[in-house]
Amino acid sequence: MTITITAFERSPDGGKGLARDTRVRWALEEAGLDYEVRPVSFRAMKEPAHLALHPFGQIPTYEEGDIALFETGAIVFHIAERHGSLLPRDAAARARAVAWMFAALNTVEPVVLDLSYAGLLEGNKPWFKDRLPLVEDRVRNRLSQLSARLGDTDWLDGAFSAGDLMMVSVLLRLRSSGLLDEFPTLAAYVARGESRPAYRRAFAAQLAQNTGLPSG
Amino acid sequence: MTITITAFERSPDGGKGLARDTRVRWALEEAGLDYEVRPVSFRAMKEPAHLALHPFGQIPTYEEGDIALFETGAIVFHIAERHGSLLPRDAAARARAVAWMFAALNTVEPVVLDLSYAGLLEGNKPWFKDRLPLVEDRVRNRLSQLSARLGDTDWLDGAFSAGDLMMVSVLLRLRSSGLLDEFPTLAAYVARGESRPAYRRAFAAQLAQNTGLPSG
Repeated sequence: MTITITAFERSPDGGKGLARDTRVRWALEEAGLDYEVRPVSFRAMKEPAHLALHPFGQIPTYEEGDIALFETGAIVFHIAERHGSLLPRDAAARARAVAWMFAALNTVEPVVLDLSYAGLLEGNKPWFKDRLPLVEDRVRNRLSQLSARLGDTDWLDGAFSAGDLMMVSVLLRLRSSGLLDEFPTLAAYVARGESRPAYRRAFAAQLAQNTGLPSG
Repeated sequence: MTITITAFERSPDGGKGLARDTRVRWALEEAGLDYEVRPVSFRAMKEPAHLALHPFGQIPTYEEGDIALFETGAIVFHIAERHGSLLPRDAAARARAVAWMFAALNTVEPVVLDLSYAGLLEGNKPWFKDRLPLVEDRVRNRLSQLSARLGDTDWLDGAFSAGDLMMVSVLLRLRSSGLLDEFPTLAAYVARGESRPAYRRAFAAQLAQNTGLPSG
C-alpha cells in the first residue's frame, strides 16, 4: 500500500529539517517504509482540496489506503503502532512512550514555539527585546526539568521510542537560539537522535527537496 | 484495580473545571470507571516523590496497577484505549480520533495558552495592551478553521470521541475571553460537550474538591 505524505514545496527554513514533515519522514525511515512526497505550495495549503485533508491548512498529511491523517503526533503514532519498532511491546512501557510523545508536543513544544514566534511574528515590535528574556526563561524551566529526568541515560525511557523521536524533533527547533547549549545533557541527547541513520536519511531527503539537489 | 489520579489541592481557577484533572475525570466518567483522587499542594508538586511520577511537576498523574502515567493526552488515550467507548473500533476512524486529540493539544491549545499566559504572566507589562490583539488574532485564526471543519455536525468526526473530549476541554479555556462567542458553531459545540452527563459528574467532582462542598 503506497504511503503518501505532504511537505512544503519550499520549507520556510530552507531545509534545516525543522518543518514537521521531517518528523514523519524520520518515523517512516525508522520503520523501514517507503513513501512518496507530494509537495504543497503555501497557496495550495489554504485551498479546499488540502483543507479536506488538513483542517488547519498545514503539512504534513498522511495517506495510506483508506487511512487519511493530519497532525504529526497522530501520524507518527500511527506509523509506530502499525509498522515499526518505535513503541515497546510491554503495555506499561508503551503507555509511557506515548506519554513522552504528548509531553514533547503539549508541554515542551508550546514554549519552544513561543520563542520562535517571538522572533518571527513580533521581532519588529517595540516590546521584543524586553519580552524575550521572559520567554527564554519559560523554555529554560522546561529544559531544566527534562534534563533532570534524562540524567545520564541515552533515551527518555529505555530503548529509543516514538517519544524520543518527537522530543528530539522539538528540541532541534531550539538550536539556533543557543538555549540548547546551556543544557549539555540535552544537547548530547539531541545529537544522539541526529546521528541515527534513519534521521540522517530523513534529513537528507527533506534537504534535497528544499534545495533541488540530490539526496544521495 | 484501583485507579488513582492527582489533582491540585486547590486549583488556581477555584473550581471552574479548567485544570487538566477535569479532562481525566471526564474520560473516566465516560468510561464508567471509579477512581480516587490524591490532592497535591503546589509545594509537593515540585518535590522528588511527585517529580518521579511527573517529570514537569504538574498534575494530573494516573496510577493503575503497574501503569504510571503523566500527560493528560496520554492518560485520556490510555483510558479510551483500554476501557471505554471513546475511540471508534474501525482503524481508520480510530486514527482520525487520535488525530483530533493531537490537534487539540498541539495545534489549538498552544494559542489558547498564549492568550491565558498573556494575561497571567504578562498582564502587568507595558506591552500587554498592544500585544493582546495579536495573540487574540492567532486564536481567532485557529477557531475559524475549526469552526469551518465542524460545520453543522455535532462532533468532529462521527460519534463523540476522545478527540471531542480534548477539543471541548481546550476550548473551555477560552470562555472568559469572550472569543468563543464570536464563533457560535464552536460555542454550541462546547455547550454540547458540557451537557454530557459524564462531563457534569466530572465538573461537580472537581468543584466539590476545590470548594470543600459536597458534589451530590
